[in-house]
Amino acid sequence: MTLLVVRGDREFLVERGEELHTDLGVLDVPDDAEPGDTLTTHLDEEFRVRELRGPDLFDHMERTGAPMVPKDIGIVVGNTGVCAEDRVLDAGTGTGVLSAYLGRMGADVTTYEIKPEFAEVARENMDLAGVAENVDVRAGDLTEHLDDVVEEGPFDVLTLDTEDAPEVVERAPELLASGGYVSVYSPFVENARAAAETAREAGLVEVETLETIQRRMDFDERGSRPTTKGIGHTGYLTFARTE
Amino acid sequence: MTLLVVRGDREFLVERGEELHTDLGVLDVPDDAEPGDTLTTHLDEEFRVRELRGPDLFDHMERTGAPMVPKDIGIVVGNTGVCAEDRVLDAGTGTGVLSAYLGRMGADVTTYEIKPEFAEVARENMDLAGVAENVDVRAGDLTEHLDDVVEEGPFDVLTLDTEDAPEVVERAPELLASGGYVSVYSPFVENARAAAETAREAGLVEVETLETIQRRMDFDERGSRPTTKGIGHTGYLTFARTE
Amino acid sequence: MTLLVVRGDREFLVERGEELHTDLGVLDVPDDAEPGDTLTTHLDEEFRVRELRGPDLFDHMERTGAPMVPKDIGIVVGNTGVCAEDRVLDAGTGTGVLSAYLGRMGADVTTYEIKPEFAEVARENMDLAGVAENVDVRAGDLTEHLDDVVEEGPFDVLTLDTEDAPEVVERAPELLASGGYVSVYSPFVENARAAAETAREAGLVEVETLETIQRRMDFDERGSRPTTKGIGHTGYLTFARTE
Amino acid sequence: MTLLVVRGDREFLVERGEELHTDLGVLDVPDDAEPGDTLTTHLDEEFRVRELRGPDLFDHMERTGAPMVPKDIGIVVGNTGVCAEDRVLDAGTGTGVLSAYLGRMGADVTTYEIKPEFAEVARENMDLAGVAENVDVRAGDLTEHLDDVVEEGPFDVLTLDTEDAPEVVERAPELLASGGYVSVYSPFVENARAAAETAREAGLVEVETLETIQRRMDFDERGSRPTTKGIGHTGYLTFARTE
Repeated sequence: MTLLVVRGDREFLVERGEELHTDLGVLDVPDDAEPGDTLTTHLDEEFRVRELRGPDLFDHMERTGAPMVPKDIGIVVGNTGVCAEDRVLDAGTGTGVLSAYLGRMGADVTTYEIKPEFAEVARENMDLAGVAENVDVRAGDLTEHLDDVVEEGPFDVLTLDTEDAPEVVERAPELLASGGYVSVYSPFVENARAAAETAREAGLVEVETLETIQRRMDFDERGSRPTTKGIGHTGYLTFARTE
Repeated sequence: MTLLVVRGDREFLVERGEELHTDLGVLDVPDDAEPGDTLTTHLDEEFRVRELRGPDLFDHMERTGAPMVPKDIGIVVGNTGVCAEDRVLDAGTGTGVLSAYLGRMGADVTTYEIKPEFAEVARENMDLAGVAENVDVRAGDLTEHLDDVVEEGPFDVLTLDTEDAPEVVERAPELLASGGYVSVYSPFVENARAAAETAREAGLVEVETLETIQRRMDFDERGSRPTTKGIGHTGYLTFARTE
Repeated sequence: MTLLVVRGDREFLVERGEELHTDLGVLDVPDDAEPGDTLTTHLDEEFRVRELRGPDLFDHMERTGAPMVPKDIGIVVGNTGVCAEDRVLDAGTGTGVLSAYLGRMGADVTTYEIKPEFAEVARENMDLAGVAENVDVRAGDLTEHLDDVVEEGPFDVLTLDTEDAPEVVERAPELLASGGYVSVYSPFVENARAAAETAREAGLVEVETLETIQRRMDFDERGSRPTTKGIGHTGYLTFARTE
Repeated sequence: MTLLVVRGDREFLVERGEELHTDLGVLDVPDDAEPGDTLTTHLDEEFRVRELRGPDLFDHMERTGAPMVPKDIGIVVGNTGVCAEDRVLDAGTGTGVLSAYLGRMGADVTTYEIKPEFAEVARENMDLAGVAENVDVRAGDLTEHLDDVVEEGPFDVLTLDTEDAPEVVERAPELLASGGYVSVYSPFVENARAAAETAREAGLVEVETLETIQRRMDFDERGSRPTTKGIGHTGYLTFARTE
């Protein structure tokens, strides 16, 4: 299992038994290092050992594009109720942060990534997340395998982050169990609208598109206020479910 | 297991073997009813059987106050990475929607509710959510049991929705595993600020307070726009973690 | 000049010399009543005399539709710098609140309202606002009079709140003085985008579309927070100017 | 009168008769240059002559701090209805953009700036804005001159952008005409709350604090969305009025 050794802003991924060279000296990671241990470099500088949690995965996974941010992953989970034992079908794996989060909740995830080299990176990222067992990263275009994938169903949740999401939404009634959810992530209004319209045409219910604006608060000795730095738009999330 | 029988806007909680009287006729719920089944009333009206998912719990749990909305539950999950096997300590159970969500992700949750009668309702809600096994609802004030609860630790995540959250945040370094998170839900700026300041004073890192504004989009034949109805403030969420 | 007599939530439009019947008694408005005077009903209840300001006009003008809200009027003024002596061409008069605000700033406003009966109401509203002299309400469709109106120019600012705004934006370079602004109010994204694209195609510069979300803060003894009631979307404002 | 000569992103303040050296050659500004004229450098490059409008003042005034942005100036105007002939009392002149905007609407503005050297710059900025006649910039602390200033009243609008705004708000009933408005700009929640509470204690009515979030929309060939860059918090605006 890959661990994190941490000291202030310094964070390094390490394997047990590894020798890590840092600007604060060389760190020997013992074979029996455990989360919570304190390790010391040859210059006597201390690092803490940590197990990777969801936000650490977001920070340390190898990126093949802009990954879905924790805010949007959270909104997907909150609005679909993904849980352990759920069967999730995902398309547009990318870096795989969403798949890793869902896998870590005990869901059984099948995820399609159209670029084989990105799928390969995503597989390594699932290893890092400790979810290689329950996240199946497939290189390919889900829209070309829908007939077969329907046979593998039903799924409880469908999470889509691809431009051609509407083509999958059309088949959601066949792919999903009763009461199952589809979520579509769309950077642009037009895509979000197309997803919502396709969901309605496909007979899905509780169709809604949400935009979520998140701001950090600044608390200092002068007072409290939302940050003056601004936090930008990420994407719209469209949800719908089968009856 | 309690099921949901659904038809359009009509949704009823039922037990297998139950006889349900609806305005569309009497429905006999068979002993072997399964999610996905279609049931028919004596007036020949159809209902669909559904297993309850997270959002259904939000809609159907008995409320003892305003429960945390799916948006905020999601933000908690996204920012703390709660996952299966996590040990979560929660205070301010209320209706118990957050505990139910976390329990359904396979987390082992201990939650304190100060009012015994609310704790009782929350326990029934955990039954409904199918998480009675891994969510331990305790009637009591967590701040009065901190010494004992520290002994039960370490926890991976601490989720607080109480006015005296800072008293618990102070002890977070003792309660949490390395890299573990605390999240505090605060309706008011002043409470959020107090939580953030206490977290900093307690030596926690990555302290941040987030405000999340969510809007529904309206898509009709005239065009696309954010809803004109407005969606209001719920609460601030403050996050911090141990080093 | 129409005045306002005010007491708490009670507000009445009155003319000097008028006898006003209220639930607090009859009020004789003297011929020499002045803003700031206190008047007394025959039941000895007091009312204050007030001159109408912009927000009062928004509240008391006869409405022929949903008028532009003070927030959006303000954004138009802030982003175009409308000032005294400016020549403003407006289309989509509606209730006329924007025209009244601009007229009260000393601008010379020509405004087109396609429905003659709405134009008539708008004229009465300009009387109420005391700007009948410098706001010329014309019944008609501006797009049908563009050639003539170009002859009347140049204008300093063009404010459009009509569905066919792009047809006018196309002619903005002919209608506007150097450095003059066009503003387009659009409830929907699609209209806003069409306005912005037309502005770019017409060679206008500094093209931008803004969305403005406004929330009221609640301050009570429990603390400070944005209102939980929510304030909805009104419209997008697109600005552009001639070089 | 100072003019602007413009070409694309290049903008220069010039006086008539001036010789301007640019990277595109030397420009002789004729004594009779008028807005709308096209001028040519000795390298045959063209510039357009423009009169300064409000947003140009925001861009070109000499800054002595972060000036109020057009959005907030607009909200002040929309919520107080400042108009020609209004008497405005302002404190916290700063760069003077708000005073210049109000002056350009024909209002008669008295503005206090505590730092004499900033007041001097503000006076020059009023010259640039062409409002030296109706904007009286006074070096001094308004809170120390309240008794005298009350004698000069009543004012129609009071615009405050100072930390000790509540001290002035207390006197608003004496300073303002009937139905007159006070607006207070506060970067922090605590200041906004203090302003609102003081307004209520002073017997003012229609007290409200607004927060305004503004975002730019991005329209490109891929679709439409709010900018991903984020636009930050500026300040809260508190409004109240006399009865």
